[in-house]
Amino acid sequence: MRYSPLITDLYELTMLAGYLEEGMHETPAVFDLYYRHNPFKGGYAVFAGLDTALSYLENLAFSDDELAYLRSLGIFRPNFIEFLRGFRFRGRVTAPPEGTIVFANEPLLTIEGNLAEAQFVETALLNIINFQTLVATKAARVTHTAGSAKVIEFGLRRAHGPDGGISVARAAYIGGARSTSNVMAGKTFGIPVKGTHAHSWIMAFDDELTSFRRYAEVFPDTCILLVDTYDTLKSGIPNAITVARELRARGHELVGVRLDSGDLAYLSRETRRMLDEAGFPEAKILASNEIDEYVIESILSGGGKVDIYGVGTKLATCMGEGGGALGGVYKLVKIGDRPKLKVTSDIAKATLPDRKRLLRAVTPDGSFLMDIITLADETVLPGETVYNPVNPLQYTTIPADARFTELRNVVMEGGKRTSDREPTLDQMADHCAGQLTRLPHGCLRFINPHIYKVSISNGLFDLRMRLMEEVRQEW
Amino acid sequence: MRYSPLITDLYELTMLAGYLEEGMHETPAVFDLYYRHNPFKGGYAVFAGLDTALSYLENLAFSDDELAYLRSLGIFRPNFIEFLRGFRFRGRVTAPPEGTIVFANEPLLTIEGNLAEAQFVETALLNIINFQTLVATKAARVTHTAGSAKVIEFGLRRAHGPDGGISVARAAYIGGARSTSNVMAGKTFGIPVKGTHAHSWIMAFDDELTSFRRYAEVFPDTCILLVDTYDTLKSGIPNAITVARELRARGHELVGVRLDSGDLAYLSRETRRMLDEAGFPEAKILASNEIDEYVIESILSGGGKVDIYGVGTKLATCMGEGGGALGGVYKLVKIGDRPKLKVTSDIAKATLPDRKRLLRAVTPDGSFLMDIITLADETVLPGETVYNPVNPLQYTTIPADARFTELRNVVMEGGKRTSDREPTLDQMADHCAGQLTRLPHGCLRFINPHIYKVSISNGLFDLRMRLMEEVRQEW
Repeated sequence: MRYSPLITDLYELTMLAGYLEEGMHETPAVFDLYYRHNPFKGGYAVFAGLDTALSYLENLAFSDDELAYLRSLGIFRPNFIEFLRGFRFRGRVTAPPEGTIVFANEPLLTIEGNLAEAQFVETALLNIINFQTLVATKAARVTHTAGSAKVIEFGLRRAHGPDGGISVARAAYIGGARSTSNVMAGKTFGIPVKGTHAHSWIMAFDDELTSFRRYAEVFPDTCILLVDTYDTLKSGIPNAITVARELRARGHELVGVRLDSGDLAYLSRETRRMLDEAGFPEAKILASNEIDEYVIESILSGGGKVDIYGVGTKLATCMGEGGGALGGVYKLVKIGDRPKLKVTSDIAKATLPDRKRLLRAVTPDGSFLMDIITLADETVLPGETVYNPVNPLQYTTIPADARFTELRNVVMEGGKRTSDREPTLDQMADHCAGQLTRLPHGCLRFINPHIYKVSISNGLFDLRMRLMEEVRQEW
Repeated sequence: MRYSPLITDLYELTMLAGYLEEGMHETPAVFDLYYRHNPFKGGYAVFAGLDTALSYLENLAFSDDELAYLRSLGIFRPNFIEFLRGFRFRGRVTAPPEGTIVFANEPLLTIEGNLAEAQFVETALLNIINFQTLVATKAARVTHTAGSAKVIEFGLRRAHGPDGGISVARAAYIGGARSTSNVMAGKTFGIPVKGTHAHSWIMAFDDELTSFRRYAEVFPDTCILLVDTYDTLKSGIPNAITVARELRARGHELVGVRLDSGDLAYLSRETRRMLDEAGFPEAKILASNEIDEYVIESILSGGGKVDIYGVGTKLATCMGEGGGALGGVYKLVKIGDRPKLKVTSDIAKATLPDRKRLLRAVTPDGSFLMDIITLADETVLPGETVYNPVNPLQYTTIPADARFTELRNVVMEGGKRTSDREPTLDQMADHCAGQLTRLPHGCLRFINPHIYKVSISNGLFDLRMRLMEEVRQEW
């Protein structure tokens, strides 16, 4: 899918025109993409969207048709349109692998290039990374709560547009969903696709049993029957058991049943009992209907026996407190050789200037201790003091047994990917699952989670203070 | 933009395969698309997405590549893949014009065709109509609150994927937004595009005044200066006034300033005063930063002087209580010559069977009185009793002075649009704005809005009761 360069805010183009006019378009610049609050009022986020972002950057070029449209707006001079004709992204991108657990205020993507190219890509990168990171995070919350039960992503019909639905399936897979109902996502990303039938299938026949029988005839080996059209326990399950017996007599096994309404804890317990008693302990119970991490918690606390959750609306639209959007921002941190700081009255909104590294301090067994943001050429050692990025009065000491991992790599140089073997979606999902086991357990809590320490180094602290002082003297 | 037929839930395909196998694929069927609760806990919704939906239906066809993918899944028989090769939508679509004010439980789209085509399009139609209707509704809430101030849609960077952003711009325009920052939406739909510069423009220069001067040089006639990088009232506005004077000396006028943080009521009042005193009463004040209908209300109640609102995240993602997703559903209401009813223990979830008309009863001056859903061949008259669709114990009388308007038309017949002159986006936006003036005022309230009456006719009431009775006797 081509991601047109016109998928951008107009102001990226007006700024570019301005930089060209001022002869500043080739000045070297560095931008950081980061967010200020973990989504869902949670304790972490799952970084996602990088491969989509790199594809966008690699293929960035204006078509004649697109240039003609820009010319037609009547706000750009002809030399700017000509400049855009040859415009490409030739910069450097530094980022963590997709599936990495990340936190507020950490530089996720760093884009280095000339001012024109590094500025222009802002809107598209935010659009891609904000949404996929949000969905991967929601999926991690849902799948972690589901434990050994599997999660199918079901949200296309409520997703924000067709492409919204495809991005959802990709990011949900990174966050731990095992399959999707979205066929296009299956084709595009190789994600397993799942799905059986709707209530309308049942209503298209004269009665429920006939509809189940017909479905099982057509799909004897992949049959999951939707049992709540009339009455789940009085009609749906008994009819499903009848069909399961008929299937077995013909050498097939019913895969399972789907519950789509009512008290899912109670209904799943009763369904499990009825299926077991009838001799179908292997038949799976799939539950759907407004599922999210909170509903799963409540089903589990009610003794529910669900094998597979179909999670739709609330995953695809990332509903929930602190959800709906990840507020990622894209800020200039260096221009030419000058580190830059955006100050505001609110220190929490002040940026972290200059090129930086993002380190994770871990115990010898790999558990996460804290993350540390340093200047690009700075080293930190266990025992050193590091500072809270949004509260300069708070500081802490790096534990003595800390070992450091660099969280990010240069993934694009000169506009080309540095690796010709990109990780697969399965590797990203494994990476995410592995990281979740090494995160302090309190960070996984939904209500008032443990706040994982993200600190800034001495060097970065000093640079920021010095730049703030300079700005203060200006007015 | 081609909307691939693979942008669907797998179960549409498995059901299709089943209907083909059972020889039911050509049975005539009727489906209704509707939702059960007005979004945002509000009093209405603005119907949108129809043109996108009709384009999808017109162009529905599987490519060789798509068929090869489906074959590779190993779950479909070869004759089904061959069937899909010739599969097209040749049905009838009945719908209101985009921009029409609609309510919960009303049939919005009705799809009539053979069972295969009418079932298959479910997921895509829901994806399109749910999202665009949700956004148009949010935009109507925001723009109605903004009154004479204009609204620019700004949300691409937080939208759910690139296409999510484009759909947002379209639907927001129908709901009353006057322009968008999204260049692709401008090109695709002819929506005016707006935008100037970001904080990074200012930070790319040594000081704010220089950055303003440079921007005004490049865009002397479309210059809106972002004034909150350092300090809005001490630095940003005085520098903007300096540049406004320099522009005027060269024969140009500053278009305005943008406030993007802080107390927008206070800052806009002070900004207005400073601009007026400096001789720039025509300079506009644009406010942005997490704007929605509630923030606009609060700015207005604080005496704010805002001319233009830039509305981003909360419009593009439709945040807010009862927001995030419109829960539209797609239900079989007739198959062959049998009207169909989905019953559940909850009467609010029981469907309205059979082919229907959707009438609006209005006063002689055009104010909306109530909507009435009737059977397709039924007429209703003033003075008749009509029933609440979700509470059979509630009924009301059609007022004596009521006149009836049919809210929906046949917009597609045999898979082709019935009109070769589709309404423009401007006509849809005008239609929406006009309807909002005729809606009972209490329906516009955000908290506990007046519940507009949607009733079902005598004939529909009786049919539903009869079908419920039949189903009850079955188990």
